Amino acid sequence: MKQPAVAIALVHHPIVNRRGDVVTTAVTNLDIHDLARTARTYGVDRVYLVTPLAEQQQLVDRILQHWRQGHGSSYNPKRAEALKLVAVAASLEEAMADWHQVCGSEPWPVLTGAASQGGISFGRCREMLTERSLLLVLGTGWGLAPELFEQGWTVLEPIVGAGDNYNHLPVRSAAAIMLDRLLGAPER
Amino acid sequence: MKQPAVAIALVHHPIVNRRGDVVTTAVTNLDIHDLARTARTYGVDRVYLVTPLAEQQQLVDRILQHWRQGHGSSYNPKRAEALKLVAVAASLEEAMADWHQVCGSEPWPVLTGAASQGGISFGRCREMLTERSLLLVLGTGWGLAPELFEQGWTVLEPIVGAGDNYNHLPVRSAAAIMLDRLLGAPER
Repeated sequence: MKQPAVAIALVHHPIVNRRGDVVTTAVTNLDIHDLARTARTYGVDRVYLVTPLAEQQQLVDRILQHWRQGHGSSYNPKRAEALKLVAVAASLEEAMADWHQVCGSEPWPVLTGAASQGGISFGRCREMLTERSLLLVLGTGWGLAPELFEQGWTVLEPIVGAGDNYNHLPVRSAAAIMLDRLLGAPER
Repeated sequence: MKQPAVAIALVHHPIVNRRGDVVTTAVTNLDIHDLARTARTYGVDRVYLVTPLAEQQQLVDRILQHWRQGHGSSYNPKRAEALKLVAVAASLEEAMADWHQVCGSEPWPVLTGAASQGGISFGRCREMLTERSLLLVLGTGWGLAPELFEQGWTVLEPIVGAGDNYNHLPVRSAAAIMLDRLLGAPER
């Protein structure tokens, strides 16, 4: 497998909602397109959409089929190319198992979140990519549920913008910034 | 005015479509939300939605009103805070005139695009922000029309991802990466 080998998981369960309850969020068509296009631009190998709901899995499959083989593939071949990276997984464990098989080595799950504290820096994470196959775990809704942070997995430092404590990036935008910091051209 | 003073203009006309014709694209609800949230996170002062179509301007006004004063403002105050940055303009000239008034100095328009060549680097643009009030001009559809590139304005280098010529970032993601490069914390 090439290095860095990087995959993204967009998690729809377990997620917290605005009240802090653990819920399953709905898959968003636009998240799929945006994440796939950004992933393809930065050479990411897989984008996992994680949802335990069979109906939601079928919805994603229909969208992917439209763009990969259906009308979409001839209307917009570049979009089709990006959407080839997308795979559905019923759980984060399933995504990790698939990514393990694809990259042939133990994946390195890294959790992300606006409220995460004490995480490793983007610079350190970037250095580690020469040695490990990253699975960057992104939350939807109000973020990844606490139980995921109790697994002992690595946590990435949050994105800080102007530094005045407004930290409400859309996951699509946060993913783009993270991939640019981890995989973008180093000369700045 | 504080420095750096930065505004974004999301242009819906003049834009090229996939065949290269100059067109007016439709305003997308999600672009408004995503750009506003990213802009607020990075301390951007204004987000101009540029469209010459009165109906589209009214649509944006209705969306803004819902989130600023309507049900949305109590449901999600953080969203309301971000959407306060958004203003509608009938043309790029109108956006520049308003931004001139807001920041009290001649704005510096900088054009962006995936196909732009020979532009200034992100590093150089970042340095210039201490001296000038930036108006970062983003295209929709297949990008800003050629006529805008014939004004003699500064052009920003394109975002290059993995460097294999796949360059089809959503404008929402491109804007996030640009703001992070221009305004994000310098220590990487």
